[in-house]
Amino acid sequence: MTDRIRDYLRARRDLGLDEGPVMVLDLDVVRDNFSAFARALPDTRVFYAVKANPAPEVLSLLAEMGSCFDTASVAEMQMVLAAGAAADRISYGNTIKKERDIVRALKLGVRLFAIDCQGEADKILSATAQAEVEAGEVQVFCRILCDGAGADWPLSRKFGCEPEMAVNVLEHAHRAGLQAYGVSFHVGSQQANTEAWDGALASASMIFRECALRGIGLSMVNLGGGFPTKYLKQVPGVETYGDAIFRALTKHFGNQIPETIIEPGRGMVGNAGMIEAEVVLVSKKSEAEDEVRWVYLDIGKFGGLAETMDESIRYAIRTDHDEDRMAPCVVAGPTCDSVDVLYEKNHYPLPVSLAIGDKVWIDGAGAYTTTYAAVAFNGFPPLEQIVI
Amino acid sequence: MTDRIRDYLRARRDLGLDEGPVMVLDLDVVRDNFSAFARALPDTRVFYAVKANPAPEVLSLLAEMGSCFDTASVAEMQMVLAAGAAADRISYGNTIKKERDIVRALKLGVRLFAIDCQGEADKILSATAQAEVEAGEVQVFCRILCDGAGADWPLSRKFGCEPEMAVNVLEHAHRAGLQAYGVSFHVGSQQANTEAWDGALASASMIFRECALRGIGLSMVNLGGGFPTKYLKQVPGVETYGDAIFRALTKHFGNQIPETIIEPGRGMVGNAGMIEAEVVLVSKKSEAEDEVRWVYLDIGKFGGLAETMDESIRYAIRTDHDEDRMAPCVVAGPTCDSVDVLYEKNHYPLPVSLAIGDKVWIDGAGAYTTTYAAVAFNGFPPLEQIVI
Repeated sequence: MTDRIRDYLRARRDLGLDEGPVMVLDLDVVRDNFSAFARALPDTRVFYAVKANPAPEVLSLLAEMGSCFDTASVAEMQMVLAAGAAADRISYGNTIKKERDIVRALKLGVRLFAIDCQGEADKILSATAQAEVEAGEVQVFCRILCDGAGADWPLSRKFGCEPEMAVNVLEHAHRAGLQAYGVSFHVGSQQANTEAWDGALASASMIFRECALRGIGLSMVNLGGGFPTKYLKQVPGVETYGDAIFRALTKHFGNQIPETIIEPGRGMVGNAGMIEAEVVLVSKKSEAEDEVRWVYLDIGKFGGLAETMDESIRYAIRTDHDEDRMAPCVVAGPTCDSVDVLYEKNHYPLPVSLAIGDKVWIDGAGAYTTTYAAVAFNGFPPLEQIVI
Repeated sequence: MTDRIRDYLRARRDLGLDEGPVMVLDLDVVRDNFSAFARALPDTRVFYAVKANPAPEVLSLLAEMGSCFDTASVAEMQMVLAAGAAADRISYGNTIKKERDIVRALKLGVRLFAIDCQGEADKILSATAQAEVEAGEVQVFCRILCDGAGADWPLSRKFGCEPEMAVNVLEHAHRAGLQAYGVSFHVGSQQANTEAWDGALASASMIFRECALRGIGLSMVNLGGGFPTKYLKQVPGVETYGDAIFRALTKHFGNQIPETIIEPGRGMVGNAGMIEAEVVLVSKKSEAEDEVRWVYLDIGKFGGLAETMDESIRYAIRTDHDEDRMAPCVVAGPTCDSVDVLYEKNHYPLPVSLAIGDKVWIDGAGAYTTTYAAVAFNGFPPLEQIVI
């Protein structure tokens, strides 16, 4: 918790406005994070992953600092444009796009697109005709599969294709008149292993060589996101990631290091936000001595903590009683849904003196909370966000 | 799909308004479902579980037909009151309530509350004083744990206590001056086993006897929800459930059958709604002959199909090509989130001719879709609902 967040919450409480959970985000931390990325990877362009937290204040700050933006939808592009960044700083990083949305993106001036199959290249080509844009102005990069080992948030095979297929996808795009620009991958969100980029860069360099043999000069590698934020466990600093990535780039590309892009989301905003929530109930399921306590908060899986799904992300939960004796608890949310349980397989230690009405603070809550919140499940409003 | 839904969707398409997924809900089906519950369990009061679908049109129809309402929050109570039902037809069925929300509920006129521990009874007692309501006017029922075997949607130990403890919780409420009214349980959502109520009713009858020995006369059993809707698998009709429940009541309560309540949610609105969605992309991850296709829709886990979590609910997906040869697919949503995959562990058979831009129809989508939708994840708007 930063001093600014602490002061804000104290004032809110003093005014009696502290009803319902709130996430408070400190822009100073976002500013520091952007600077750290810029220092750690000085020759790499930063594309902030807007989906992590699209708050207008965050987008404006990053636009001002010179960041580029990775967007998942036309709505996100519009938010970025409204924040003052030009369209040439936006990529359409979703490999799953409706053709009419590609047309809209082109009309907004966006020229950088992710693909992972020939069908998606065909849609872009067709969209250029409709938007009256030269195909040769449009840059496409092909996403490849990555195993995601070492990451806390599960990475599926949803995005990307096998590296061998990527060569054909890029050749297809090239022959259609699009600019075959490069390769992208994602090592998995909340990636604790700084060496995770090595294997993917080996594949990327193979694709560069294979494309060169076919007369196609690729020039960019999109290193994706995956940079972690601190929850309970300590994580390496961003400079450690920068060093490891630079070593892997040199190893696989020698003295022909390509242009690079990174797409931090969680790593940019995660530690900037903190949730204040309230204990609604503490109870037991039977009167047995050793029965575990259930602690019910006024925030749960449907109110912003969706990333506790399968207990993937284990948040740090602080209380005013943390000096007291701790005992294992099940932690659950406030809705009438039986799956709205945060930690049950792995009990969470909380102070024995924690009581109904106590506040709790959840750190590292700046990413993937406000937008994951359900519209009005059980009549509960979505998570409120205050940017300071 | 009902004729009314088919006609509505055709008109929408003809007007070119068919962009983005939509859920269309036919009130005639809700009307039929309510009548079927009333016929199958003639002596049981129906409390519709508002969380399943709080559309004002649904609430108004059910209010008019004489339904009562099970609510999870004060916001849901306000919706019910706005729909024209009086407060004496509302229960506050959430066992996890803030004291100030109990005060609000009491002030709105609500007098029926679920609890599962002494702490919750204490909050209600304290709230009666603040709301200036006689404790003796307030009815509480204690929820007991149930194993949920046979249900498709996982039921955790989140709600309820062991039956032995329930006796003490009810005695505690009684001594505090509240009306110890009865017992509730939930056999698990989408419960395919019509005999699932038997074990829980055995526990309920034990609690009635044990309370009677302590001078407390309970009078009500809340049989909960769990009544299924048809997805891919056939499910028993509501009259089969009614017969089984009546047999179990007679078996455990003899000729002293208590008042009963049911709380259908999914069973009331599930089959009334259908989602129309679109195929955004069909692709493969490699060029191998036997590689499985990935079919990406414009709706996924964060756009309304949250109940595909762990592939719990397997929706029926229909297309215009269902006469063609089928082949197994992975089905995924449109967001940049790797967990936004609907069916992967168990591949879903879809026609080989299914192509980008095709419409698909998802049956049984009237419950737990619109409210489970995320606020704006990846910039995608929440699921649109049309009630006809």
